[in-house]
Amino acid sequence: MSKSVAGPEIEKLIQLLAKVPGLGPRSARRAALHLIKKKDQLLGPLADAMREAYDHVGVCSVCGNVDTSDPCTICTDARRDRSVIVVVEDVADLWALERAGALNALYHVLGGTLSPLDGVGPDDLNIKSLVERASNGDVKEIIIAVNATVEGQTTAHYITDQLEGLDLSVTRLAHGVPVGGELDYLDEGTLSAAMRARTRL
Amino acid sequence: MSKSVAGPEIEKLIQLLAKVPGLGPRSARRAALHLIKKKDQLLGPLADAMREAYDHVGVCSVCGNVDTSDPCTICTDARRDRSVIVVVEDVADLWALERAGALNALYHVLGGTLSPLDGVGPDDLNIKSLVERASNGDVKEIIIAVNATVEGQTTAHYITDQLEGLDLSVTRLAHGVPVGGELDYLDEGTLSAAMRARTRL
Repeated sequence: MSKSVAGPEIEKLIQLLAKVPGLGPRSARRAALHLIKKKDQLLGPLADAMREAYDHVGVCSVCGNVDTSDPCTICTDARRDRSVIVVVEDVADLWALERAGALNALYHVLGGTLSPLDGVGPDDLNIKSLVERASNGDVKEIIIAVNATVEGQTTAHYITDQLEGLDLSVTRLAHGVPVGGELDYLDEGTLSAAMRARTRL
Repeated sequence: MSKSVAGPEIEKLIQLLAKVPGLGPRSARRAALHLIKKKDQLLGPLADAMREAYDHVGVCSVCGNVDTSDPCTICTDARRDRSVIVVVEDVADLWALERAGALNALYHVLGGTLSPLDGVGPDDLNIKSLVERASNGDVKEIIIAVNATVEGQTTAHYITDQLEGLDLSVTRLAHGVPVGGELDYLDEGTLSAAMRARTRL
């Protein structure tokens, strides 16, 4: 991007595309060119879809999901089990669990993990609102589905402390061998966790 | 993308983003989420930039470049040497040469290379219009700057044949060692080409 070779409209498009995760300056140029070549099939529809999303998509004030309605379709879905809240770090994790169809419950998006080094404290995450939701009497279980990282586990422990005294069970996802995973490629931590949590065949 | 978990607006955005080169279904989801989170900094401006590009950018009817004006700013640039036309496969190559500032000449974008296996014949490329431009009397040199691939070289030879009989010289880019390149990592073809074309120090 050292020298501007295309017109300002195209340069602007390339600069913004380069900020999209997964694209860099070089691939943004390639993407912009592809979009311009596929004007009617891709560029126009994508511009419309982005405008639509910009105008209509927002963050759910209850759970932190992103959706076109507030509260979101998951929060207002009457067929869901309202006694269980799955706590996730990010909306991407919510989507992953929904794709897996793992549970028909409600969610709560933290918006990150506790990370003192990065200056992320409890007030920067949606923990207070989780405790409020958990206190309403209907909730019987909080499943903490954060990543199995140090920050994730620290956050999980902090949340567990905050929920103490409430009449509900706090659970976490099981550790173990990924389905389809080969033992040879797994780290020792996962293997010993899977061994400890072994179940009867 | 097996199961729709987000609203239709978001799903539509993800589906279209997945068609952008450099992004796949998984990274499109990540990109969509990032865009929605950075609504005002990224999603809105990108939607506008795409709309702008859609409304204003087109293909130059003279050289095949993409630009907001037709003929493009390069074709109408009075400071350029109008006696030299650089023939490239794609607009990306034109941009690359412009960034390099290699020459202050005109361009001609072929739109691909001859490839019988893919059903790309001479009529699918902008070869006829090149011969017309080359015949106008002003042009003294045609530099064929296609990729150094089999298809590129085949196309170069075909074009050279088409230009035969016209009073101009047809040249190609030099083969040799890339600047900053290490001999150890270069293929034999490049090395022997560089050896044959050696110059006096």
